[in-house]
Amino acid sequence: MLNHLEKYTIILASNSPRRQELLSELGVEYIIKALPSMDESYPSHLKGGEIVKFIAHKKAKSYESVMDENDLIITADTIVYFNGEALGKPKDKETALTMLSHLSGNIHEVFTGVCLKTKKQTISFVARTEVKFASLSTEEIEYYIEKYKPYDKAGSYGIQEWIGYIGVENISGSFYNVMGLPMHKLYTELKNIE
Amino acid sequence: MLNHLEKYTIILASNSPRRQELLSELGVEYIIKALPSMDESYPSHLKGGEIVKFIAHKKAKSYESVMDENDLIITADTIVYFNGEALGKPKDKETALTMLSHLSGNIHEVFTGVCLKTKKQTISFVARTEVKFASLSTEEIEYYIEKYKPYDKAGSYGIQEWIGYIGVENISGSFYNVMGLPMHKLYTELKNIE
Repeated sequence: MLNHLEKYTIILASNSPRRQELLSELGVEYIIKALPSMDESYPSHLKGGEIVKFIAHKKAKSYESVMDENDLIITADTIVYFNGEALGKPKDKETALTMLSHLSGNIHEVFTGVCLKTKKQTISFVARTEVKFASLSTEEIEYYIEKYKPYDKAGSYGIQEWIGYIGVENISGSFYNVMGLPMHKLYTELKNIE
Repeated sequence: MLNHLEKYTIILASNSPRRQELLSELGVEYIIKALPSMDESYPSHLKGGEIVKFIAHKKAKSYESVMDENDLIITADTIVYFNGEALGKPKDKETALTMLSHLSGNIHEVFTGVCLKTKKQTISFVARTEVKFASLSTEEIEYYIEKYKPYDKAGSYGIQEWIGYIGVENISGSFYNVMGLPMHKLYTELKNIE
């Protein structure tokens, strides 16, 4: 499957080990090339899915000047969105504790924006998943932060870690989107690359 | 967490490698003891979740005579339910092809019944997840069956395999339920074991 991509050097522009694992599952060959110090700022009027679409697109644009003829760049950005606010990666234990206390017992949204870019085409898309957390005790939240140190994760959690097993009551949408790549949509859009 | 279970020998009565992986994620120690030739028949008037509850309970009952004082048995059964019919494990390639062709482009339900049993308590519960498959081509279905040989899987697919990545558009409910154990509910009910 996806044999038409064999003419491309597929480049995953992400340091996320989850994204690397997920992309491997498609059975395509790829290399990792994440530019240092990617600018992840965005205009403050953007909401939800607009934010990740904007950032994924900006990341892809920053590769334009270094792209070879047969490169296919994949960029992505994921946010946890709660109460009209984008939760990024927590800077310390206290921030992680505050974020998870807010998510506990509530529904939040996870948005991932993806951009696929070749010399000829640019395809952008966004996936949205609703996640319902059970009410977690402070003890459970502290145990998770202490043991799993979720400082590289938007919203302070990984759905494929202990807290995702014990704490997520329900999701509605794509599970893999919450891990960082909406796999079904990614596969579908990769089929549209010429 | 779940330290109150330390007095028990936790016994997972399942040969499913997915269930074994999932239970390990809770961080509890357990052993595997699946009785040979478990009877998985059920009365034909049962529907959906009633089926898996019945089977999980029956599996647990069959341990009664060999249970020690401090044993905690975990049994489970998972079915894929489509058009009022329970899809079990496919017996051959043709059956798998038929099942997946039916699921393609449609929404089905996945039910897992779980039974937790000690000498003093029996707790049963059921989880339900809706899964929406994209329209898959015959080529995609055949590629999956050939490569992944899903003969040990209810409904002929594993959501954590290639077909789950590229073919599942949406789920509504617990993701881990589709893999064979509804983890949040399991964790919650294990807290209720005295």
